[in-house]
Amino acid sequence: MPELKESLSGIARPDRSVAAAANERQAALTKPPGALGAIEELGSRLAAIAGTCPPPVPEAPVVAVFAGDHGVLAEGVSPWPAEVTAQMVANFLAGGAAINVIANEVGASVVAVDVGVATPVPGDHGSLVRANVRPGTANLAKEPAMSLDEARSSMQVGLSVADGLVDQGADLLVTGDMGIGNTTPSAALVAALTGWPARAVTGRGTGISDEVLDRKIAVVEAGLQRVAASYSVAVTSLSSLAPEVLLAELGGLEIGAISGFVIGAARRRVPIVLDGVVSLAGALVACSLHPAIVDYLVPGHRSVEPGATAAMEHLGIEPILDLKLRLGEGTGGCLAVPVIRTAARVLAEMATFDDAGVSGPAGA
Amino acid sequence: MPELKESLSGIARPDRSVAAAANERQAALTKPPGALGAIEELGSRLAAIAGTCPPPVPEAPVVAVFAGDHGVLAEGVSPWPAEVTAQMVANFLAGGAAINVIANEVGASVVAVDVGVATPVPGDHGSLVRANVRPGTANLAKEPAMSLDEARSSMQVGLSVADGLVDQGADLLVTGDMGIGNTTPSAALVAALTGWPARAVTGRGTGISDEVLDRKIAVVEAGLQRVAASYSVAVTSLSSLAPEVLLAELGGLEIGAISGFVIGAARRRVPIVLDGVVSLAGALVACSLHPAIVDYLVPGHRSVEPGATAAMEHLGIEPILDLKLRLGEGTGGCLAVPVIRTAARVLAEMATFDDAGVSGPAGA
Repeated sequence: MPELKESLSGIARPDRSVAAAANERQAALTKPPGALGAIEELGSRLAAIAGTCPPPVPEAPVVAVFAGDHGVLAEGVSPWPAEVTAQMVANFLAGGAAINVIANEVGASVVAVDVGVATPVPGDHGSLVRANVRPGTANLAKEPAMSLDEARSSMQVGLSVADGLVDQGADLLVTGDMGIGNTTPSAALVAALTGWPARAVTGRGTGISDEVLDRKIAVVEAGLQRVAASYSVAVTSLSSLAPEVLLAELGGLEIGAISGFVIGAARRRVPIVLDGVVSLAGALVACSLHPAIVDYLVPGHRSVEPGATAAMEHLGIEPILDLKLRLGEGTGGCLAVPVIRTAARVLAEMATFDDAGVSGPAGA
Repeated sequence: MPELKESLSGIARPDRSVAAAANERQAALTKPPGALGAIEELGSRLAAIAGTCPPPVPEAPVVAVFAGDHGVLAEGVSPWPAEVTAQMVANFLAGGAAINVIANEVGASVVAVDVGVATPVPGDHGSLVRANVRPGTANLAKEPAMSLDEARSSMQVGLSVADGLVDQGADLLVTGDMGIGNTTPSAALVAALTGWPARAVTGRGTGISDEVLDRKIAVVEAGLQRVAASYSVAVTSLSSLAPEVLLAELGGLEIGAISGFVIGAARRRVPIVLDGVVSLAGALVACSLHPAIVDYLVPGHRSVEPGATAAMEHLGIEPILDLKLRLGEGTGGCLAVPVIRTAARVLAEMATFDDAGVSGPAGA
């Protein structure tokens, strides 16, 4: 099993010379140069990640849905009861959730990972990974969400899941999350790691009222101030603390697992598709640990949650889709898979002007 | 073969009561209400179009790529030679173009229709429909692009293709276009039908220089002024003329065919996915002939061409994707197919809270 530290040291930037070769090929294909817009940029990135042009077309995408519960729910940040986390994991395994429908549509597999669910997840199932680090976090508004050891263990879970999936043939990994209350720790981590204010990164999650949103913003602010006071730094300088420390103080177990999952994908040079704000919080932790990881990220969509936009701006990445989703589970990431596969296939399968006997423009 | 006039009179609004039933079902599915954003709206629209909830999941999408040439090319609006239109049709039939790659990815078929190519399209092919109304249009800057009879014939071609494809089992139709120079007549038609100025709707097409863009805008303005003078109306009131007249004066044969294709889809109650500005110009003609047609339109993407945005704003429709595409061929429409299929599958396949034994929010 790969260790976190050595995994990080094994991560390298994708190959820029391959991206350049891919750009050259894009220009020779039977279309006006640049006419496929974001598809062309994405294809060249996939080539650089794989280290070969054309890049392999992803045939076995896997969505890993990391599930955990949140002590901060005691503050009234969501109307949904914590038991829904375990119930939804059962729904994933039974195939009845949105992520199952979307994964079926795009030809992806779904794996659910219990990294910190508070209530028992029933039954035995081939698509369930049992790796519960602790049954939910503590209340981040009042105390550290978890210990540093637990934070590292949650990351290790994600890293191992990524590694195992790639060993089994997965060639595109998609992040997913399930955890009632988890947009609160995500907002806190995004604020801490980007320096954006709590009010600008905290959203309505499942669709809360103005009153609950105000409470949620206050809870995020309370958490940030608690940590700033503990470590004697300004709230706007929390990003100077170690990312694992911030994860332990403010995070969720599924967020830690997602950060490890992202690290694991980059280590294996597999593109990693991100879903919404919970996934982006995990990606921010990962990228704080190693800046080259950002080159492996493919943000699937722009979530309605403002923290998602804050995180993407901070990382300098642009999403593929913008469909006003705010569901999590990996839905927005998974829905981008056909576009990602198309980007690879364009480089692999389109005819060149020479192949097809098509004339070029005058003066070219 | 359906006639244009009787086809128009057979078009009715989709069933609003079915959309209401679909919205009710969306709220019972295991996700926070509205959390699938645009996917939910789209699913409810598909249900209304089909007249049944859940709507059928499209299993046999077909992209029809209508090809024609343009006399206005003589004005120097594009550096590409007209012969590329026929060469690219051959490329579609050989499977080497971007639309082939995307159609393969999303499980769609491609049909190419020669409705007005100027140079011979070689060979015999099961996926080629030969329905050449005339070998390219006249120069719209100086004279009518075609006669009123030819405009109607081009529409009839599209109508018949739509009808034939639905008869053969197509359950989702996607518009595509190929025609060197065809963003010029598209811009002219969009300007005429929306009232937007030429400068605001004319774009760089395949990627022309500032100098060529200025020339192209002047050409579009010249065409609009010519028609306004012929019919003694103000340039800003051209939309008061009959849509077929505007099509004959300013259009392209493939644009006429697309308008007929859109009418044919609505007549058969099949959702019609639009690609970029050329498709939208055709859709504007169709919607000017019957306002209910707009309810059958699913704009696949927001093309870089400004005329696409003008047309969508005028029609009050929002695109699914925004990937900075400007290729045509149906690429942006086709790439939206998995999202459209997902919207139908969510209603058909997701578990309800009751089915899955998942708790609802407090106070619900």
